[in-house]
Amino acid sequence: MKNFRHKQRPKKNTLITGRDKVIEAIRSAVFLDKIYLDTTAKGKEIEEIRKLAAANQIPVNYVPVSKLNNFNVTHHEGVIAQIARVKYYDLQQVISFIVEKGESPLMLILDGITDIRNIGGIARTAYCCGVHAIIIPDKGVGALNEDAILTSAGALEKIPVCRVNSLMKTVDELHLNGIQVFASKMTAPKNVFDCDFKEPCAIILGSEEKGIHPTLMKICDEQFKIPMSGDFESLNVSVATGIILFEAMKQRSF
Amino acid sequence: MKNFRHKQRPKKNTLITGRDKVIEAIRSAVFLDKIYLDTTAKGKEIEEIRKLAAANQIPVNYVPVSKLNNFNVTHHEGVIAQIARVKYYDLQQVISFIVEKGESPLMLILDGITDIRNIGGIARTAYCCGVHAIIIPDKGVGALNEDAILTSAGALEKIPVCRVNSLMKTVDELHLNGIQVFASKMTAPKNVFDCDFKEPCAIILGSEEKGIHPTLMKICDEQFKIPMSGDFESLNVSVATGIILFEAMKQRSF
Repeated sequence: MKNFRHKQRPKKNTLITGRDKVIEAIRSAVFLDKIYLDTTAKGKEIEEIRKLAAANQIPVNYVPVSKLNNFNVTHHEGVIAQIARVKYYDLQQVISFIVEKGESPLMLILDGITDIRNIGGIARTAYCCGVHAIIIPDKGVGALNEDAILTSAGALEKIPVCRVNSLMKTVDELHLNGIQVFASKMTAPKNVFDCDFKEPCAIILGSEEKGIHPTLMKICDEQFKIPMSGDFESLNVSVATGIILFEAMKQRSF
Repeated sequence: MKNFRHKQRPKKNTLITGRDKVIEAIRSAVFLDKIYLDTTAKGKEIEEIRKLAAANQIPVNYVPVSKLNNFNVTHHEGVIAQIARVKYYDLQQVISFIVEKGESPLMLILDGITDIRNIGGIARTAYCCGVHAIIIPDKGVGALNEDAILTSAGALEKIPVCRVNSLMKTVDELHLNGIQVFASKMTAPKNVFDCDFKEPCAIILGSEEKGIHPTLMKICDEQFKIPMSGDFESLNVSVATGIILFEAMKQRSF
């Protein structure tokens, strides 16, 4: 949380403060990015907020009260909610929608890509290449704010984003829907252009530093690499995304 | 020059100051990025610096003396040279070297891509995809400093960079060497994967805002587009580069 104040402090007009107002917002289906809750806050309303947040898949950040005071708002009563700039979609609903349109799902899963500008860049490319939805975890990723939307050149307002509680469970859910899951891995023997992206599929991308989490990698159906010339380490994740998705789009166009 | 002080002010240890020292540096073939010359400076040595700079293709920036004072160095005598962090190569020598190795040249020309971090990102991708050299104009592009090298993940120290006085003349030079010049253009009828990148070729990339200059576009041999899904504007230049170069690498690998 070291950079909390500088990096993520949201604008006042994107905040809902106070217990009743936050409860009301969730009940009236206002899209929320995150709820900041004072670790020491207690009471019926706090319990209610926790339950509603869980039921509506809104991440709750437990923070010391000093963090809430830093938002510089009055009467927060131990709770501040941040209104979402990007609308999040339910994964199963998105899949059903794609299938009903008669299309073969093509999705992107981002594992450990937490920088919102990186996500924006990836969304821009994904939208250009006809990706149906982007799946991100609800923890560790900052709010997809104006900066992210700007980097995405607006794509984040056009492409559905699904925020999920567990990527492991998400892969299971995709499998149940007949969607194959491919993972990008530097050392895989198979080349990206030998994969069949025409079938319903989701592609997992890991961060440049850590790659895809090993347990997640294990439950994927196939691994592929982007062949590279020379002794060089790796492509930027945004560029790699472009290469993979362009290959998928090419296969799907012909 | 509005952002001169903030963006480009180089570190002191990368500067050579004073007339004699700058002359000596050019004569002893120290790689220089740029020479800053006081517009009002006169004298035999200044004439000598101008001649030497022209002969060695070192760009000269004519600036008011206040700019030189801003470098915060002593005794500049109206001239400050910036030592290059990246070594620049002579285009004809690079071409001869590639051909002698028995390879088919694949080069990248950057027109109007002035952001050094963008150039770094492109260099990273170019190196991964086996590009032989990157050609940039000597005007308008900032010095390829530590920031650029960092963004390139070190690629700028591995891939030859040619800094040329005129991109128009460069295309002529490439033609004389039997190198075809392709240009990326959103509205071209031909798809990128219908181009033959196996032959000796150079690919021109324009900036996201302005594209390739029309007069330069006119003397190119072929134009191609990256097909895109939906109504979206365009890909990020770094991602577009990845897609184009990966197509070229794929064609050249099989």
